[in-house]
Parts: sequence; C-alpha cells; structure tokens
Amino acid sequence: MYVGADYYPEHWPRNRWQTDADLMQKAGFNIVRMAEFAWVNMEPEEGRYEFGWLDEIIEILGKRGIKTILGTPTAALPPWTLRKYPEIMVQTPTGQRLTWGMRKHNCFTSGVFRLLSERITRAMAQHYKDNPNVIGWQTDNEIGGHPMCYCHSCRANFQDWLKNKYKTLAELNRAWGTHFWSQGFGDWSEIVPPDKFDEHNPHTCLDWKRFFSWLNVRFQKEQIDILRALCPNQFVTHNFMGLFSEINYYDLAEDLDFVSWDNYPVSGKPDMTNNYNAAMAADVMRGLKRRNFWIMEQTSGSHGWGTLSRNPRPGEIRKIALQQFAHGAEAQVWFPWRACTVGREQYWHGILGHDGKPGRRYQEAAQTARDLHTLDEHLKGTTVRADVAIIYDYESVWALSFQPAYDENKYHQVIGRYYQALRRAGINVDMVRPGQDLAGYKLVLAPDLYIVRDSLASQIDAYIRNGGVFLADGRFAVKDETGLCHVRTLPGLLAEALGIEIEEYEALRGGIEYQIEEHLHRAPVTRTAIHYADWIKPTTALVLAGYTDWHMQPYAALTRNQCGKGAGYYLGTIVKEPAFYDALIRELLESAKITAEITAPEGVEVSTREGAGKKVLFLVNHTEQCQTVNVPAGKCEVLRNKTTGSAIELAAYDVAVIRL
Amino acid sequence: MYVGADYYPEHWPRNRWQTDADLMQKAGFNIVRMAEFAWVNMEPEEGRYEFGWLDEIIEILGKRGIKTILGTPTAALPPWTLRKYPEIMVQTPTGQRLTWGMRKHNCFTSGVFRLLSERITRAMAQHYKDNPNVIGWQTDNEIGGHPMCYCHSCRANFQDWLKNKYKTLAELNRAWGTHFWSQGFGDWSEIVPPDKFDEHNPHTCLDWKRFFSWLNVRFQKEQIDILRALCPNQFVTHNFMGLFSEINYYDLAEDLDFVSWDNYPVSGKPDMTNNYNAAMAADVMRGLKRRNFWIMEQTSGSHGWGTLSRNPRPGEIRKIALQQFAHGAEAQVWFPWRACTVGREQYWHGILGHDGKPGRRYQEAAQTARDLHTLDEHLKGTTVRADVAIIYDYESVWALSFQPAYDENKYHQVIGRYYQALRRAGINVDMVRPGQDLAGYKLVLAPDLYIVRDSLASQIDAYIRNGGVFLADGRFAVKDETGLCHVRTLPGLLAEALGIEIEEYEALRGGIEYQIEEHLHRAPVTRTAIHYADWIKPTTALVLAGYTDWHMQPYAALTRNQCGKGAGYYLGTIVKEPAFYDALIRELLESAKITAEITAPEGVEVSTREGAGKKVLFLVNHTEQCQTVNVPAGKCEVLRNKTTGSAIELAAYDVAVIRL
Amino acid sequence: MYVGADYYPEHWPRNRWQTDADLMQKAGFNIVRMAEFAWVNMEPEEGRYEFGWLDEIIEILGKRGIKTILGTPTAALPPWTLRKYPEIMVQTPTGQRLTWGMRKHNCFTSGVFRLLSERITRAMAQHYKDNPNVIGWQTDNEIGGHPMCYCHSCRANFQDWLKNKYKTLAELNRAWGTHFWSQGFGDWSEIVPPDKFDEHNPHTCLDWKRFFSWLNVRFQKEQIDILRALCPNQFVTHNFMGLFSEINYYDLAEDLDFVSWDNYPVSGKPDMTNNYNAAMAADVMRGLKRRNFWIMEQTSGSHGWGTLSRNPRPGEIRKIALQQFAHGAEAQVWFPWRACTVGREQYWHGILGHDGKPGRRYQEAAQTARDLHTLDEHLKGTTVRADVAIIYDYESVWALSFQPAYDENKYHQVIGRYYQALRRAGINVDMVRPGQDLAGYKLVLAPDLYIVRDSLASQIDAYIRNGGVFLADGRFAVKDETGLCHVRTLPGLLAEALGIEIEEYEALRGGIEYQIEEHLHRAPVTRTAIHYADWIKPTTALVLAGYTDWHMQPYAALTRNQCGKGAGYYLGTIVKEPAFYDALIRELLESAKITAEITAPEGVEVSTREGAGKKVLFLVNHTEQCQTVNVPAGKCEVLRNKTTGSAIELAAYDVAVIRL
Repeated sequence: MYVGADYYPEHWPRNRWQTDADLMQKAGFNIVRMAEFAWVNMEPEEGRYEFGWLDEIIEILGKRGIKTILGTPTAALPPWTLRKYPEIMVQTPTGQRLTWGMRKHNCFTSGVFRLLSERITRAMAQHYKDNPNVIGWQTDNEIGGHPMCYCHSCRANFQDWLKNKYKTLAELNRAWGTHFWSQGFGDWSEIVPPDKFDEHNPHTCLDWKRFFSWLNVRFQKEQIDILRALCPNQFVTHNFMGLFSEINYYDLAEDLDFVSWDNYPVSGKPDMTNNYNAAMAADVMRGLKRRNFWIMEQTSGSHGWGTLSRNPRPGEIRKIALQQFAHGAEAQVWFPWRACTVGREQYWHGILGHDGKPGRRYQEAAQTARDLHTLDEHLKGTTVRADVAIIYDYESVWALSFQPAYDENKYHQVIGRYYQALRRAGINVDMVRPGQDLAGYKLVLAPDLYIVRDSLASQIDAYIRNGGVFLADGRFAVKDETGLCHVRTLPGLLAEALGIEIEEYEALRGGIEYQIEEHLHRAPVTRTAIHYADWIKPTTALVLAGYTDWHMQPYAALTRNQCGKGAGYYLGTIVKEPAFYDALIRELLESAKITAEITAPEGVEVSTREGAGKKVLFLVNHTEQCQTVNVPAGKCEVLRNKTTGSAIELAAYDVAVIRL
Repeated sequence: MYVGADYYPEHWPRNRWQTDADLMQKAGFNIVRMAEFAWVNMEPEEGRYEFGWLDEIIEILGKRGIKTILGTPTAALPPWTLRKYPEIMVQTPTGQRLTWGMRKHNCFTSGVFRLLSERITRAMAQHYKDNPNVIGWQTDNEIGGHPMCYCHSCRANFQDWLKNKYKTLAELNRAWGTHFWSQGFGDWSEIVPPDKFDEHNPHTCLDWKRFFSWLNVRFQKEQIDILRALCPNQFVTHNFMGLFSEINYYDLAEDLDFVSWDNYPVSGKPDMTNNYNAAMAADVMRGLKRRNFWIMEQTSGSHGWGTLSRNPRPGEIRKIALQQFAHGAEAQVWFPWRACTVGREQYWHGILGHDGKPGRRYQEAAQTARDLHTLDEHLKGTTVRADVAIIYDYESVWALSFQPAYDENKYHQVIGRYYQALRRAGINVDMVRPGQDLAGYKLVLAPDLYIVRDSLASQIDAYIRNGGVFLADGRFAVKDETGLCHVRTLPGLLAEALGIEIEEYEALRGGIEYQIEEHLHRAPVTRTAIHYADWIKPTTALVLAGYTDWHMQPYAALTRNQCGKGAGYYLGTIVKEPAFYDALIRELLESAKITAEITAPEGVEVSTREGAGKKVLFLVNHTEQCQTVNVPAGKCEVLRNKTTGSAIELAAYDVAVIRL
Repeated sequence: MYVGADYYPEHWPRNRWQTDADLMQKAGFNIVRMAEFAWVNMEPEEGRYEFGWLDEIIEILGKRGIKTILGTPTAALPPWTLRKYPEIMVQTPTGQRLTWGMRKHNCFTSGVFRLLSERITRAMAQHYKDNPNVIGWQTDNEIGGHPMCYCHSCRANFQDWLKNKYKTLAELNRAWGTHFWSQGFGDWSEIVPPDKFDEHNPHTCLDWKRFFSWLNVRFQKEQIDILRALCPNQFVTHNFMGLFSEINYYDLAEDLDFVSWDNYPVSGKPDMTNNYNAAMAADVMRGLKRRNFWIMEQTSGSHGWGTLSRNPRPGEIRKIALQQFAHGAEAQVWFPWRACTVGREQYWHGILGHDGKPGRRYQEAAQTARDLHTLDEHLKGTTVRADVAIIYDYESVWALSFQPAYDENKYHQVIGRYYQALRRAGINVDMVRPGQDLAGYKLVLAPDLYIVRDSLASQIDAYIRNGGVFLADGRFAVKDETGLCHVRTLPGLLAEALGIEIEEYEALRGGIEYQIEEHLHRAPVTRTAIHYADWIKPTTALVLAGYTDWHMQPYAALTRNQCGKGAGYYLGTIVKEPAFYDALIRELLESAKITAEITAPEGVEVSTREGAGKKVLFLVNHTEQCQTVNVPAGKCEVLRNKTTGSAIELAAYDVAVIRL
C-alpha cells in the first residue's frame, strides 16, 4: 500500500534532502507527490527547462524505496508568464485583470495559457516518462476555486458553446425564458456572461456555470491527452476537494484512472457533523468513478492562511486517516511533509514542523503507516458495498445557489441530515450521479434534487414500481434541465408514485416555526418544522406526519405511498430535531428491509468493505471517551492481531478493524 | 369597481389565452395590466413594431368585459438596445458600464435612452389611443431602484442643474459649505458627483439625490407628455412602491391622474408592524396627490427572487386587499395572474401557480372580488378624512441617511412608533408634504423632520399659536434646505413655541440606556431612553418626563408648552417601551380633543372613509384569533349584508365594513 | 502652559472673529492651531496666494495673548488641483482614480502632489517665518489613513525601494520565500504591489506596508526640510493618532521637535478599557521620542461623521484632559473651538456649539484651563519615569494583520490585558521601540511580539541573564525581519532563557476552551484558556499554570524560568478572566521588586511624574461614584491648594494632583 507525504524539495536546502528521505523511510513511507507548484523552478524562463534538481531528489528518494507522483505545475503562474502575457490573468466583470500574486488566477480561454500548459506538461512527460521511480501524475492542483473570467475571449467562447448546445437562437430563447423582462435575443453576439447570480436570468447563470465547469474539464483533458500519449505506463489522477461543488466532478473524474482527494476535517470543533462530512465526502469521491480513491492530501496538523485550525489531538491523525480507508481509500499521502517557513501557507503544519524535528505528529504518522501496511492484505480487492444510494447532483447545487427558496438551503446540510442518520444507523451509503442505474439499491434518497429531467423522473417512477423505496423532499423536481419550472403540479411526473399534490409552498423566515405531529413511533411525537413548508395534499399517500397549526391542518408534512411493488416517501419541510431523522431512516430501512451489520454506541462509526471473498468491519471512535462495542466473537481484530470476544474496547480516537 | 390582475400573455402559449380570460371573468375580474416588460415583443428590432399579439389578447379580454391598462415597457431594455448603444447602461463611479441582464440599469441622461423611450411610447400611444378596451396607461415600472449613473453626461447634466439652481458659484459654495476641507470651487467643471454618501460633502450628496430624483421625474414627464397629447381619453398612472424613499414621490405623482402602488406585506413574520406599515404606506400614497389611489400590484402568494416569503394564510389575501380600501384604495390589481415558469421572478406566485389550475388562492381572490363589487356603492365618493397629520418628507430621509446621528435612526421606524400608536387608538392619519396647509388638522406630528426651512418653521409656529397641537422630536429642524446646520440654538425658530432650548445632544451607543420618569399617567412610570438623547432645557415648557440618571437630571425628556391657543410637545429621545407611545398619543389626542370612532381589541384595525353623505367603518382583524368588537348597533354590515347588534365577531383575518 | 483650541476662522464671518478671540481669552486660552484645511483659502488658484485673512485673525488673537500654530494644508486638496492634475488622486488596484471629495486621497509618489506640497509649504513659511505670534508648525494632518495607491508610479517607486533594500533579486527572492507557489522573480519589473493582504505573499505585503509608511515619512520630511530652513525659531510637530498603527510612528516622529496627538476617548461606553486605552495611547506617544508630548486635538463634545458618540458628562472634559497630563502632556488644544455648521464634520461638537454661545462645555474647558495654569509650575521639568517597559512594534502589528493565527488577535487588545492590569496596580509604564536599550527597566513585557530579529532576541536574552524580568506570550518571535518563520524550535534563541520548547500550537475556534489550573495564588485557581494555545514543553522552567484537559496535561500554560540573575516568563494562551492578569502582574512585580506609590480603589487611576527635583502624584477618578483614596498625609493637593490628610475624596470624574 502506498503511504507517504507531499514533499517540496524546492523549499529546503539540498543538504537537507537526505535527512528528509531517511526520516520518511524510517516512518514506513513509500510515496511522495512533488513539483505541482514548482513551475518556475522547472521552467525559469520561457522554454528553458531545469529538471536536474528534481531528478536528483527523485533519485535520492527512489534509493530508499520511495516512489514519486509528479504534479503538472499549472495552478501557480511564474511571474514571467504575466510579464510577457498579461492577458493570461482573469478579467473581472468590470474589465480589470486581477493582480498577480495568488494561485489559480488564469483565464481558461487564454490561448497563451493553454499553450504554456501544454508545453510544460509535454516537457515533464518527455523527461519523466521512463523514470522507474515516477509512477504517476497529478494534473494541476485542486481544479476549481478560480475566479470566473469575463474577458472578450471567454464571452466569445461562451457564445460558441451555446451555439453548439442550442443550435438556434429560438431554442436558446425558449430554454432561457427570455420572454421575461424583455430579454429575447436577436443575435448570438448579444449574449453576455452573467455576473450577478442573484439578479440575472437564472437559466443563463446555470449555463454559465456549466460552461465554466466544462472549461476546467477541457483544460485538464488537454494535459491528460499529452500524458496518455507519452507515459502509457504511469497513472493519471487529480486531487479533488471532497464536497467542493463548483466543478461537475463527475465530468472531471471521467478522464482519470482514479480519483484522489484532499481531506481537512479539523477546521471546526471536534463534532460529529465534521466527522460525518469527511465520511460523506469520501462516499462522494468513491461515487465519481464508482471505485476506490486515494487521499492525496491528508491532515497532519493545525493549518490556515490567516487564522489557524485546531491541532489534531493525540490519536486523531491516525483516526482521520483510517476513517477514509473504511470508506474506500486505497492509498494515502499527508500534506505537507514539513511546514514551509515562507509564503502564504507557512502555517499549514506538516508531519514535521518548521524546525524539521520528528515529534509527536511524526510518531503518529509512522504508527498509522505501520497500521496501513498491516491492513493492506485485508483490504486488497475490497470496496464499499451499499444498499442505500443518495442521488448527488452538481447542477442542483448550482441552481439552488441562485434561488435557494429559503436562506438555510445549503445542499450538504440538507443531504447531511439524512446521511448522518444513516451513519448513526451503521449503514453504508453510495452517492450516485443522477441517471445512474438504481436497480442494485433497496433504498434511494433524493434530497434537494431541484433539477429533474423527465427521463430521470421516469427512471425513479419505474424504480418505485419495481419494488424500490424512495424518498424526496422540498424543492424536488421543481425545475427542468435549464431551470424552467415544470408546469405540472408538483411533484410532476412523480405525483402518482408519491401519491401527493403540492400547489403551494413557502419559506418560514423570521423565526416562524410550525408544529408537526409525527407517527413514526408507537406514540405520536411532536416535532418542529423550520425553514420551509410544502403545502402537501395527499391523494393516495398515507400521512406519517401532519401539521397542527390552524391553517396547516389540511396539509401533510411526511407521506408514504405504496406504488406497485415499492414505496415513495415525501418530506415537505425541514425538521429541527435530529431524532426525527433517526426515526425516519429507521422507517425507511425497515421498509426497504435493510439491517446494519452491528450497532454501536453514539460516536462510534460503523462501516464495512468487502470483495475478493473478504469482508472487513471498521469501528472508528470519533469521541474522546473510551467506548465498548458489541462485536461478533471469535473474529480477528487485525490492527491488534487479536481474536475478538463479545465486545471490544476503543480508547479515545481509536479504530478497530475486524475481519468478518 | 376595477378588480383584476397583472397579465403577461407573452409568457404563455396563445392556446392558453382563452382559458385565462375565462378564468378571470369567472372570478369577477374586469381589468388587467399588460406589456410593461414586453419591449422586445413590441419592438423586436429598432423601429420595427409588432402589436398584433397584444391586439389579439386585448380583444380576447375585452370580449369578456375585461379592460386593459398598458405599461410603457422602458424598465427592461431589449438586448438590441445594448448591442447598438452600449452607452445606454449605467456607469459606476469607477467608470464601468454595468452588465446587461437586470432591469432598470439605464442611464437617465443618455440621449439614446430618452429617444428610444419616446419612440416606443409614441408607437404604443398611436396604436392604442382609440382602442376602447384600453382605458389607461402606466408609465414604466416602479421608478426608482436604479443604480445611480456616474458617466460624463450625468456629470455634465448635474453641473447644469446646479448652475440653474444656484446661478453663481459663490452661492453654491455658500450653500455647500465648501470652506470646509478646502472644497471651494473655482469653476463649475470642478464639481464631481459624490459616490460615498458617508464620506463626501453631505450638502453635495443631498443635491445629487435631488438631481437623481429630478431625472426620474423628467423621464416620466417625457412619456406623459406624449400620452397626454395622443391619448386624451385614457388616464395615466404609475405604480409606486409605498415606503420606498429614493425618489421624491410628491414630484413623481404631480403629473399623473392618480397614484397606484404595489403592496407586498407578507415578506416578514405576521406581526402588527408589518400590518401597520401597509396602512402607513397607503396613507403616504393617498397623501401624494391628496386623493384615493389604486393598488396596481397586490400580494397573491409567496414570492422572492432568491429566497421566498411566507405564503398568505387562509383569509389573508382578502384581508390584505380590503385593508387598502380602508385607507383609500379605489381599484385593485393582483400581481401576477399566474406564476411565470421562467426568469428571475419565477417564484413570484400569482393567483394561479405554475400549473395554471385554479386553487386556493384563486378562490380567495374570487371571493375578494365579489366583496369589492359589493363595497363599490358604499365607497363611491368617499375617502379617508383625518384630524391628525404627520409631516412626511423625502429630503429629510435622504439627509438622515448620510448622517443619521444614531445607528438606529431609520425614518419609517421612527415615524412608525407614533403611527402604530395612532392606529392602535383607531385614529385616521394623513401623511402630508412639508409646506402643505395644516389648518384642517387638530394634531400635527413631525417625527425625524431633519430639514426645516424657515418658512416651514414659521408655518408650524403659526399653526401652534392658532390652536394646533404639535409634536416634534430628536433631530427636528437641525438643518436648512441644503443641509447646513442652523446657527440658532435648537429648536431654532420653534424655541418659543416649544418652550425649550437644546444646546447639546448625543447618541447612546454600545448599549447605553438612560432611565426616565414619565408623568403621563396618574402615577409616574419609569421608562427607558435608548439610541439618542437631546439635553433639553425647558424655558417655558412643562416637563412631562425627565431623566433620573445623575448627570441628566437637569434635562427634560418630554415637554409640553402652551403657546397661544395651541400646544407644542417635544420628545428628545427614543423610548424603548411601546406603551409609552400609547400614553403619549393619548395625551396628544386629549390635548387636541380628538376621539376615536370606536375602540377595538388589540390587533383589530379601525378606520373610516366618508364623503358623498356616507360614512363607512372598516374593522380589519389582523390576528389569527376570533375577535369581538363593540360596534354601534342597528347598522348595516355590508359584506355579510346584516344589521349589527352591539358587538360583532371577526374570525381570523376577517374584515367587517359597517355603514354608519 | 499652552492651552487653547483648534480654530477655523474661514468657517465664520469676520464680524465674529473678535467675539471668538474674546471668549478664548476669557477662558484662559493662549494658543490656537489654524489653517490646516485652508489650502483653497490660501491658494485659491495655482500660484496665487492670499494670506491677508489669516494675517488678520493671527493679529486679532495675538493682541489677546493668543499664539498661533499653523498647519500645512496638504491633507485636503483644493478642487483646482484635481482639475489640472487628475493623476494626483489615489489609483485603486483595479486602475481607477478615486473620486475627489474626501481628504487624504492623494498619491504620494505623484510628482505634482509633492511639488504643490512644497510650494504651499514654502509660501506659508516665507510669509510667517518672522511673525512673532506664530510659534510653530504642524505638518499636514493625521498622516496615515490614506488609501494605498497602485498607480504605475507607485509600482515603479516600490520596485526602486526594493532594489535599494535588497540589492539583488536573489536576495529578494530569498527574503520573500518566492520558491513557494512558483513566485521566483526573474526581473525587478515583474514585482507588483499586493492588494489582497489575506491572500498574497505575506513577505511582499510586509514590505509594501513598510514602503507605504516610508512614503508618508518622506512626504513629511520634505515639508519639514523647508520649515527648518526658513523658520529656525518655530517648532515643528505633527498630530498623531494614538493607537493608530498604519504608519511606523517611530519613524514619523524622528524628524519632529516633539509629538502631538489627537485624543477622542468617548466614542464608546464609559468603561475602563476606553479610559486605559487613552492612557496607553499617551504612553505610546511619549515613547515615540521618549519625551513629553502635546495634545493637539482634545475631546470637547459628542462627535462623528454619520452617527455620533456620547456626550462627555459633567466633569469628564476636565478629566479627559488632566489624565493626559498624568501621562506626559505638556500642552493641550481642544478640537474644535466651535462646531462647524457645514461639511462632513458638522457634528464634531466643539467648546462651543453651532449657536456659538458659551455653555456647559465652555465653562468646563475654562475651569480646566485654570487648573492647567495652576499645574504649570508643578509639572515643569517633570515627566513619567517607569520601571516597566512594554515593547511596542508596528511591524508586528502589520504582520499579524495578514496572519493573526487566531481571529481575535488584535494587538492592542492583547497588550491591553497586561497594560490594564498594570494600571490597576498603579504602576507607570513605558512603551518602547524594539531594540531600545532595556537596561533601565526592572520588568519588560513583549506581548504579541511576532517579528523578532536575532539581534533583538540576543538583547532580551542578555537582559534576562543580567537580572531583568521578562514576559513573552503566544506568537512571540515566530518570524524574522521579512516574516519568514524561524526554523529553530520556538521560542528560538530565547528557548534557554525561557526554559521551554514549543513545537505545536493551535487556534481555539468555534467556542473551544481549555481549562487551566493556575498556581499564582496560595491555593490553585481554575481559569479558562481561549482563542489560542501553545503546546509548551518546559525544559528548565517551572509550571505556574497547566492544562487539565485530557490531551493538554503534558503541556504548560504559564511558565517561569530562572536564568542568570533574571527570570523569563511565558504565557502560551489567552486567559478569559481579567483577574488572572492581575495575579500575573502581581507575580511579575514581586519578581522584579517593583512597588506602587499608593494603592487606590478600582476605577481610580494612579500615576506619577517626576524630574527637576519634583514628584507629582495624579489620582484620576474614572468612575461616576465618589471615591476615597488613602494618600500620604501632609502633602499639597495643588488643584484645591489644600494639605492632605490620610485620605482624599474624589467626586465623580474628579482629579487630584498631589505634590509628593
């Protein structure tokens, strides 16, 4: 198994390199990522390349059995690119080029940027294609997070992209609803990129986001094409950013061998939402290509550009790492090896601190590396297998960001309410792309799924009728592909399968709350509806929760509808109490006949990997208390190499892995 | 009586038009407003007009007895205007033209904009002047809310406007106090429009606001002149925005036949401040031309561009509508007929939802329309008659916005404290322009009246001496016409009539509060002074409330001064407890010998209309509880067509109208 | 002693001048500052000077024994400068010139600005150098607070300044750590000024701040050179802004005869933090040149551009003034004489209000002036002498503003925790420049001293070994001169003297708190660590406070290390409870063998001045309660001219001055 660190030899004097390599070897490391911010070191002036320093460190590391992943360095522009080609920088909507000095500020339609990117990629590929210590490539760095560019070239490219998509102006005018506010275009050249997403035409905004995502994917593809052609024996990956949603990650992942990602869960208080977001992000990453992933940057200390995060506590560095393997990681790289003494990230603490001495964090990383090598044989050939799927959609995120309907409509928070309850229940979850085959799943959730094409609606309808259990909630299927509202009474094509009709809805602002009575338990329980309410009229559906406020009594809050062999659930509001979601998930799991492998105390995460005839159970103690978990007796707990009794003890932040 | 909806035939397929017209007819509708955002539909390219589609729908509606108001479509620019004339867009202070894509982003000194506005207005007027189904015009849409333009043309026009106003630079230098910070102008060309209203010369800022308001009024006047010339038999109105205060609405109303306005009171929690703001706005609208008004856009559902408002509850659509008639409405139009499926306002819900089916809101609107037709004969010839006037001044709002003195100095909130207490007392109120004859009023309030010309001060002084009761409060008469501070000890020319002198004042920030003891009740009551304190020295005035803090004991908080036949009151602070304002209003009403028609429980609004020998009492239940109101017996309650007993029951949101 | 007001004759009609002069004389005033915003009055068009009006008022005042300080008027540009020289205005990073209309918006590398500044300074100096009533000059006004300019000229000047500083690009690349994010410069012309201080290279940002400060100092120096050459008998000062930290005030003070400053402590609630900030600011001002200072603008009323401050309460104007004399003031000027009726500062209330009548504030000022004249003989030759020094560093403030580590890391708040405890203990404090000789001090504190050159570290090390008591805290000595992190384990060169090692640290965000147990008292006390925590490993140090949280138990919160003849303390966190700082200061004072002159009740500030054989004790009652203070008996209380008993009574805001 590959375990290692992100290393920046260009930050340190050459006489330190051997020491670093020795320390890595001693810690059990066998991989580094390098060079992804070293453009100016490799090409100090246009067309003059210097790879000697990099050759040397690759060699030093290689001698100690440490392989190298190289990053294409295009996320940070050398000063000479700007001096020679000012048009390389992003232009703001009001016409200024951004000031050089940050990373990721290039225009993606800039011809010179694309040319320079191709040249440095080709030069690196040519130089390293046969180096036996170089096993793979990372494209750029954390694609996305660029400011959008509004230069003439981007505008023209946007118009071309639209021409290609819509063919005729009439179709674009229809798809964008330009009969509103007198926006009918008479000429393609009249189209301008939107810059006020809360004011401009939302359909234009949606296509502009799509175009921007497409530009990023195209940029990566141009690098990949070079790497594939020259380096057929080296893999190509990219370091994604978990729950980051500006780029359509499904598209960005398509051209890669596998997905890697960067995991920094300690920026907040040590609470379960953060812990489960790291799990959810892992499930999203695994879903991008429906296969295991790498961790390319893993938390190794306190970090931040201006203000810092907390420091991982004793055992936490290991716990953070192992949790990812529970969700499908197959290799792991910490960021960074050593805290840099210079620049904007000088407080992004690494395995080593500024002083370069191996300390507490180094010892924990070394222990973790040992554990990972132990796990290797047990995990080989396994991945996460789930009965539950959540449909995860970038286009809905974008569209909701322009028109959230209620202020607190944050996509990951909405999904998180269900996801966290599923984790508390100890159930594996897949995050799936809209349109992906759902046949293998017993339960499918579609929280905040705002944009639903008719084909997707039909697919879900068939899924239910064929025996699936399905849940949707507020803002489901309001919009079509370009963000036009469906004219059918909500939930549109699903109205029959869900057994309800929704003609009215509202945001609950300024502290308005409704009371609901929920019948998921033996006795009815009172809950609080917040933020948003659909005024649901059940047609054939059973009411599982209803409102008690005088004017809301005719309407349902939660419904269940038997349809064909399956069942459709609909939740028309946000419920304040997390316990409600536990009850709801229990109901859904029972309905779908799904049971957990084991149950564990609160704060102990349960998940499994299986494959190649193996099944492995992970128990991750996210708390700072000792926890006792009932487990199957007589199995091997592989990290301690012990046979289990009927229960296992987990110290603060401890992790157990049981071979079932 | 005209009752109807704002209709956008251009949003819907032609085969739907008949259905819509039938549904309107069935609901008792007899008016629509159309075309105010349909420029590109009527003039798809410059100079080529297409009115066929509009002719057709006007005809369809007309056949069902539904008349049309046409809007000039200049609030939303077709894309071709920008392609051909980029200078049509607003320029920011830093020199950029705004991005096209929103409405109302034109420069008002742009020659081409004024020319295009004239042309489309003339084309429409020419085409529809003799159409019997077209009964009137709305100019543009919700004038104001434009970003200010800082282009060269606007700067030059501002300089011209100033030359015309001040004649000499010496006079401008005096009026703007340019001896401060070395700002003395040596040439008209040196004058630049201000863009930082919290930093630049406040006198310049005030004139710049006046100029901007004047530009809007001139723009409307240019359309009105065409409409008057070509369409002498059709009325001209405009849809104002209630408490919006960027434009001097008195000026904007001057050239119109009557005022219309757009009423959206459900954006907040259902509370009395919102309810009474809708009443106050109505009184402001009635005051603009001192006559009844129309509602041109009335709330018909949940709405919002990004996040939504709450949904009007059962009965609330009707209540919202009828409340406006209590305050002088004489016709009403809901916005919109049907929620648009496209564009930025696709969630501005209408009488119909996206699905176009008549539902709950349609039924309520139809019921309301029936009620309004019933009311017609009782309201004809009546309007609101008030003994109490509040001086309402746009220039003070502007000047206070640059220099509020205390952070919480929001004009409508300050006025609202008195207005709401007057409403709770069941008293009609007129909102009057500074300088308007006050002779007919028994009580005049001038809250936050910051700018007081000497002529106005003299008028008020005479009003008091002749028997009027008058109240002023903090920041009263601090400034003259151009915002220079009066050099007289405050309250300046009113010092004798109010019997006080104020040499010092202060803001109470960071949670500072003073205690005051108020003697408006039989026993003294302790109240809390917040936000601001004048340090008032009574000369001849009686102290009705004084401070108890050690250093404030020499100063009065509330005073009453007998002067001539009248009385002058002054309140030098904000009092935290609303009950204080009730006591104060009681005192003022007693002093002015004003009594309410009836008294009603809290939450039930009482008001009256009279004229043409009739007097009508409105009872509006703003609460969600059933309320019992004691009323004169033996009168006709016209909506139920019943004779009253000694009390009347009002269900949640119910309204009663009694013919006295 | 000079006591007076800032006077603006150009604001008032000439027929008022005599009245003002009479009122000043009657109040005991003998100094005014004038003309610092009157450029357009003195030079109404380029090169034409008008000094007649100023001559006249200087003469009127002089006849009444009132001397004049003249300000060079360069802080506010006349309109003609902009009309003729648009390049005089600051350019934003995105390329726009700011709109004229505020003060201090000039570019400092603008050749024309520097030329015009020289010309008006020379013209004034030439005209007034021999005027016996003009005793001195103030340069400009409150230098700093300008927006930074990003024009081509500023960029070129920055590059030149860097060339001069670093000589070679290689050295600049090293000092700025440009191997991070591919920022290595290949040419000086590639360097661009940073505008995003939270994103761009922090080392570049630090030098850009230094350059901007240097530009301001150079600008002042150019005026001073002219004044020195032409007016050898008149002093030159400048009005500083207390705790303002944008300019390196040590540098700005260097070329002046003495420092003056502007004191406005009433903007907040009347609390001790505000009161002690005024004291701390005074100590900073005295430290700039290590000598007494003037107050050039002293609070005389409620003030503010938009919203106002509170009004000084009875006795407070006097207390505010006298407190400054306790800290080294030797003359005082109130701002302004009379509240201006025009312009942005029309609510900056003066000794007189808008009405020009002498009222409460005038009476208090007159009383204060009498007191100051009484004090004159007792203060002559005295200054503040302190055993305690706090190292006060502008470069650390700047560097912390880019990378505060924790959100609440506000420099003056951090220093203030210690400073306020020292004030509560009645101990004089000097604020000293890093590098200043520390030999005279028994106790030195270095709170938030982020940037520590090796030479300073060595100096402090020697100070401790030679018997000094020293305290540092979190973020101490993290960075070197250009902001690179030291590679030595923290606290670097001081590790031995402080007896600790710190390899890890973290911010405590999102409400995280740790518990610490402190042993400064007889019995251990529990305290709360907030915001930030160093994970301190004591080597030779004693633990005075440790953490009780499970994972923090190995680490110290507060340590004491005996080293040579002295002691080094280190506090690795922020403690929530102010009482902790009292205990800590008590410990430090005992350790350093420092005792207070007397102890006084909370809210009564104690301080002393001495020199010329005199010692004077100030007691300032900051509270609104009467306070009893035990004092040495048989001394002269000079303001009441009474001999002291064993205690003295101080009324609200009263001040006593005792000759010891």
